[in-house]
Amino acid sequence: MLISELSRRTGVTVATLKYYLREGLLPPGTPLSATRGDYGATHEERVRLIRALIDVGGLSIGRVREVVDAHAHPPESRHGLLGVAHAVLRTPNHAGPTTDPLIDRLGWRVPGDSVARAQLAGALDRARRDGLDLSEETFLVYADAALLMATRDVRDELGSGSAAEALRYVVLGNVLSDPIVIGLRRLAQEHVSAGKFGGSAARP
Amino acid sequence: MLISELSRRTGVTVATLKYYLREGLLPPGTPLSATRGDYGATHEERVRLIRALIDVGGLSIGRVREVVDAHAHPPESRHGLLGVAHAVLRTPNHAGPTTDPLIDRLGWRVPGDSVARAQLAGALDRARRDGLDLSEETFLVYADAALLMATRDVRDELGSGSAAEALRYVVLGNVLSDPIVIGLRRLAQEHVSAGKFGGSAARP
Repeated sequence: MLISELSRRTGVTVATLKYYLREGLLPPGTPLSATRGDYGATHEERVRLIRALIDVGGLSIGRVREVVDAHAHPPESRHGLLGVAHAVLRTPNHAGPTTDPLIDRLGWRVPGDSVARAQLAGALDRARRDGLDLSEETFLVYADAALLMATRDVRDELGSGSAAEALRYVVLGNVLSDPIVIGLRRLAQEHVSAGKFGGSAARP
Repeated sequence: MLISELSRRTGVTVATLKYYLREGLLPPGTPLSATRGDYGATHEERVRLIRALIDVGGLSIGRVREVVDAHAHPPESRHGLLGVAHAVLRTPNHAGPTTDPLIDRLGWRVPGDSVARAQLAGALDRARRDGLDLSEETFLVYADAALLMATRDVRDELGSGSAAEALRYVVLGNVLSDPIVIGLRRLAQEHVSAGKFGGSAARP
């Protein structure tokens, strides 16, 4: 398809697609003439990946490039894929602690330099500073819930397909399902509250 | 305390504190003279709430004002508090579907016009469009995990204290614990993956 068709199908302007081409985020199409290229399904899929990372994941162009590079040269082991995916999805602010007594309490098999560990320690630190005193009991309930989801995630996302496909799925899966998990948590709060306090939730 | 001390304790500049005062986000201090006011613990707590909503929750000043207004005039019922909190925490983009077959599948007690329902329907719609085909089985696992967390949240956050305190706790609790839940999910993925695929997660 021509770039105009790729634009129509993805809802991304031609000018933006040309920017992705210049930045190397999108591989060039098969040349049809000096100025026209032919684009296929892999281009369309790549554009959707880029948009999801930017719009939903809030990633910068630099981070998107990391995903694209890792996608072209995925690590050998399935477990290694996760480290790459989590590094790309790390929160911008990496200052602060890299571990936390609550995390140690979990007894999980996670290396000390794990990006996910530092991200979680940062979130716990921030919550405490801003006045949310999360009890160990509540934290362990969240950890049980996280383990339930992760057991499913690792089966679904890392289990099959090529390494490149698995990486795409881990990154996209986390980026796109984080809002689903957060939305489900809010909806579950309403459901539980309706059962406990009755009535319907007021809207301002 | 003087505004300079409030600034020192919260890490927010005096210029920004004066902006919050002008915008009505922060109530005025007790006048000490024509130009100086006395600020207390409630001011300090309010500033921390504002910063958490902006920095962690990504809320606009307009949304912060909604929280502050609701905080001053909280709804009567405990269940009503949740609706207000969720409306404030809604994602910016509200276009798109307000329900979804997967949500109906849950059988939860949630009104059709719930903000949380629309937010979840939007996240599901977006995920599908961007190529994440979430199976019903996986969705129901996430729902179980959400219910586990929500049962704890509603007990902890809505159960005690004044209505104003409960509202503050629901909003702050959700804003500050969302990154903890997401961080725990990533860490749990590493733990499960380590058990299944062995080795340690590669870092780029």
